[in-house]
Amino acid sequence: MKAFSTLAFAAVVATVALPASAQFAKAEDAIKYRQSALSVLGTHFSRLGAMANGKMPFDAKSAQESAEVVAFMSKLPWAGFGAGTEGGKAKPEVWKEQAKFHDLSGKMEAEVVKLNAAAKTGNLDNLKTAFGPAANSCKSCHDSFRNK
Amino acid sequence: MKAFSTLAFAAVVATVALPASAQFAKAEDAIKYRQSALSVLGTHFSRLGAMANGKMPFDAKSAQESAEVVAFMSKLPWAGFGAGTEGGKAKPEVWKEQAKFHDLSGKMEAEVVKLNAAAKTGNLDNLKTAFGPAANSCKSCHDSFRNK
Repeated sequence: MKAFSTLAFAAVVATVALPASAQFAKAEDAIKYRQSALSVLGTHFSRLGAMANGKMPFDAKSAQESAEVVAFMSKLPWAGFGAGTEGGKAKPEVWKEQAKFHDLSGKMEAEVVKLNAAAKTGNLDNLKTAFGPAANSCKSCHDSFRNK
Repeated sequence: MKAFSTLAFAAVVATVALPASAQFAKAEDAIKYRQSALSVLGTHFSRLGAMANGKMPFDAKSAQESAEVVAFMSKLPWAGFGAGTEGGKAKPEVWKEQAKFHDLSGKMEAEVVKLNAAAKTGNLDNLKTAFGPAANSCKSCHDSFRNK
């Protein structure tokens, strides 16, 4: 059963993650990897939020760069949530509700693709429009799957 | 003088870093950012090394994905080494020998571009050829600028 669920999870992850064949020698390596990827993502996402919310002057080039990083990084963390890598801030629900986890992470990826497209227009209003749904997609996944 | 050196360092970084206008509220945010970016880079670089050295079966698709991540991530850490962000594993020499730091980080970026091109060929021998110089470019920077 364990082997089957590992395979099933791998199949789910393979549809969304860039490094589908990622391997980690130890669970802590996987945890560090996903936390690092999400941290880099979060830094740039926060910067976009600061611009969208008027807390930082809008700089079109900086916004484009950050949105590009966010879009790229959004593909990476999921390979770090393989079977047997429970821990860190992740709730056990990540491994118990894989379909939901896959659904919510996929929605985040889809929203940051739109955010990236919005940033490329160089228009602050477009960034503002795309930022809210993207931020909500982060939040809904965190609410279900991340310990505070 | 401090303002001048900050500007000079920013100008140097701007030539190599993707998020040239990166800003961090606190030094520890910058330290966490650069460590996270280098950690993600290191995970994928190690995976390429394991394939190049025969410690992991060569998988052309996985190698291409990892090399793509390495090439993308190689642009990010430098924005996290701004003035006033001393600490972490970074030696003070990072801020005292900026020209050398810039030179060595630039060499690493150039080598991983070649590594990425090699991985795209899908040929293990090409990966092996490109991996050594890329690994040396990491090491020479670490030897000068990273505490053990």
